[in-house]
Amino acid sequence: MARQAADETAIRTLIETWHRATAAGDVAAVLKLIAEDAVFLAPETSPMRGRAGFAQALHDVLKTHTVRSSGEVREVKVSGDLAYCWTDLTVTITPLDGTSPKVRTGPALSILRKEPDGAWVLTRDANMLASDSAELALKVDNLERELMADGPGG
Amino acid sequence: MARQAADETAIRTLIETWHRATAAGDVAAVLKLIAEDAVFLAPETSPMRGRAGFAQALHDVLKTHTVRSSGEVREVKVSGDLAYCWTDLTVTITPLDGTSPKVRTGPALSILRKEPDGAWVLTRDANMLASDSAELALKVDNLERELMADGPGG
Repeated sequence: MARQAADETAIRTLIETWHRATAAGDVAAVLKLIAEDAVFLAPETSPMRGRAGFAQALHDVLKTHTVRSSGEVREVKVSGDLAYCWTDLTVTITPLDGTSPKVRTGPALSILRKEPDGAWVLTRDANMLASDSAELALKVDNLERELMADGPGG
Repeated sequence: MARQAADETAIRTLIETWHRATAAGDVAAVLKLIAEDAVFLAPETSPMRGRAGFAQALHDVLKTHTVRSSGEVREVKVSGDLAYCWTDLTVTITPLDGTSPKVRTGPALSILRKEPDGAWVLTRDANMLASDSAELALKVDNLERELMADGPGG
């Protein structure tokens, strides 16, 4: 039971470290939390594979943006060297060019593995941050209004 | 090792049963595969809670639609009484009124638990089926084209 509690604490610490390191732009610190064979899943995109794939994507974003994320851990469950963690995330992506930041929120379900050295790492991640569909719906509304104004009675 | 293999087979069978029972509209058979305290996560919506919450939602859809789903199991991993399963899903939702079906594809990451009686049940589910944003993007394109045609040169 004590080991179970220690594992849960380690995983909660991992999540905190992740957010802090991402905000600081410390890619190396984030990568230490990710298994070499990790897979990142999200809607409308192919799986992002490996620590290397994640590193490339994060480096690319951080060239032109800062990323601030915070998360409320809803649940951590451990069985042996396998665990899952459900978090509610808020991610703010701010362009360095001064244009307005984008805020995306939603849940994530992550799988973690205890490595032989006792450290937990993230191995699978299901990202359910809201997509751009809310934004697109607004655009449709605006265009439809424009069309009405341009129409016979406009 | 034999037990591990048996658990993996049981989980793959659960997924197959899920698809077959859903297509047959056999809600009772689907509900047997779901833990009483299950939580279903997806983008842009609140968590759907419990076997009861799922039952209600499925009943509602099946009043006006048939649902056919198929899935390729990408990975099953077991540790003790906890497991996860990554599947690539294709879900076809066909209105009974004869209008055109919607096809949604995407990955799912599911957590499963072995109950005291030895049966596996689904406890957490991360649904990453593509949202309507692809459809909305198409609508934006069409509206923009219409606006161009209506414009000064149209």
